[in-house]
Amino acid sequence: MSKTTTMSVDIRFGDCDPAGIVFFPNFHRWMDAASLHFFMSCGVPPWNVLEHRSGIIGTPLLEHHARFAKTATFGDQLQISSSIIEWRPKVFLQKHVVMRGADLICESTETRVFCRRDADDPRRIRAVPVPEDIRRLCD
Amino acid sequence: MSKTTTMSVDIRFGDCDPAGIVFFPNFHRWMDAASLHFFMSCGVPPWNVLEHRSGIIGTPLLEHHARFAKTATFGDQLQISSSIIEWRPKVFLQKHVVMRGADLICESTETRVFCRRDADDPRRIRAVPVPEDIRRLCD
Amino acid sequence: MSKTTTMSVDIRFGDCDPAGIVFFPNFHRWMDAASLHFFMSCGVPPWNVLEHRSGIIGTPLLEHHARFAKTATFGDQLQISSSIIEWRPKVFLQKHVVMRGADLICESTETRVFCRRDADDPRRIRAVPVPEDIRRLCD
Amino acid sequence: MSKTTTMSVDIRFGDCDPAGIVFFPNFHRWMDAASLHFFMSCGVPPWNVLEHRSGIIGTPLLEHHARFAKTATFGDQLQISSSIIEWRPKVFLQKHVVMRGADLICESTETRVFCRRDADDPRRIRAVPVPEDIRRLCD
Repeated sequence: MSKTTTMSVDIRFGDCDPAGIVFFPNFHRWMDAASLHFFMSCGVPPWNVLEHRSGIIGTPLLEHHARFAKTATFGDQLQISSSIIEWRPKVFLQKHVVMRGADLICESTETRVFCRRDADDPRRIRAVPVPEDIRRLCD
Repeated sequence: MSKTTTMSVDIRFGDCDPAGIVFFPNFHRWMDAASLHFFMSCGVPPWNVLEHRSGIIGTPLLEHHARFAKTATFGDQLQISSSIIEWRPKVFLQKHVVMRGADLICESTETRVFCRRDADDPRRIRAVPVPEDIRRLCD
Repeated sequence: MSKTTTMSVDIRFGDCDPAGIVFFPNFHRWMDAASLHFFMSCGVPPWNVLEHRSGIIGTPLLEHHARFAKTATFGDQLQISSSIIEWRPKVFLQKHVVMRGADLICESTETRVFCRRDADDPRRIRAVPVPEDIRRLCD
Repeated sequence: MSKTTTMSVDIRFGDCDPAGIVFFPNFHRWMDAASLHFFMSCGVPPWNVLEHRSGIIGTPLLEHHARFAKTATFGDQLQISSSIIEWRPKVFLQKHVVMRGADLICESTETRVFCRRDADDPRRIRAVPVPEDIRRLCD
């Protein structure tokens, strides 16, 4: 198991839809922020700095599975706990659990991959094996 | 099996992230739009009209599972095909397949539930059984 | 002059565009959050609570003017200072100044109006005069 | 005066806030898309293609002034007319008028500047004079 980090989110009026609850893609925006927050809390630089050192530009998603247990609305504060539950040679599984105090709001398991820009065409991105130095920082 | 409907999306500059590709929560924004587009194409009124007839305010997500096969960027046009692959008494499973021409970009299966506002506290929402009249329009 | 309140924002990867800088509509999302944060810091309840007391559902924009001085990117932390620079009988002018430490990033002056739902058609919203009790809390 | 181009937008459920109306930063997302749509309709390639030819990565905003006349909601279709109302040596003023059929919803005048990445530090961007070839395509 990796470290676990926690990030807070204050839900805002504009994050909610006409039903008065969080529009669900926003949970994924926050989980994506929690994913980078996890790496930065472990000592990995943000992607724009890392790109200049090692070419890594981020960790795009290959797959994810999310469950939504309770609704949330603006004025609520969320705590997102993030950890890496499995490292594979080329991908990793990151889990996010979103709580409002003692209430489980939602949780998601994401399969992500480290990527660089293609050397020949910088508009394309290429998956690379999990960098050993990053993995060591996170364990 | 239900009907299948298709919705087009033009990817915009602001939908993409510093890696130059679609920020993945935007795929879920578009799939959510494709979900309502499916119902409206089947003859169901938009939620703001339906609320005044039957109290239904939308179809929040309970769960979803998505796979991302290829990246996409601004200037690309996507086609999202949506159908309902299973009706259960209280929930339904809706599948969205996102293509760019012949390329599969991503796909997701969503578990959704019809909801109304709580009669005693309109800030809360309550799940209701799948309305028969809506189901008939979609098959 | 009213009180001045400050709200922090951590810029996230997904807030930035392919040029690597904040996609400008996100500054307005944050200013909108800073606007409500101002009222809540002054003791006004969030709109979903206030609606049940007085019918007020929010403060839609009538007009705004923004200047962008420097770019910002993910990993930066912003401080947004908000105050009301003029109360008129029916509208108010709210100013937001967005700083990154000592650097001015952008600023905006917004003309906003308090609104309720229309009594006859709750899908429509109606402007109301500035509520005296809210104004007193903010001065 | 430049050409005028028109772009359609279908407002979606998730573009609207708990008051049931478009969350105003989304109008700016659409105007930004209309800005690029204008250039592409005039024969300018999208920024990701243009970057490889001339280094131009986009047209960040320096300033804008917007007025909101009527509210809009999901199910509505908008037409955004865009034109360049003034070319200056280093910046240009672009105007967007957002209509719903015959109803004016909002309008904005944006001051924008063409930018490239800094040669020494690609994380920084630099303003460049208005490219003559782009201007000719738009007039």
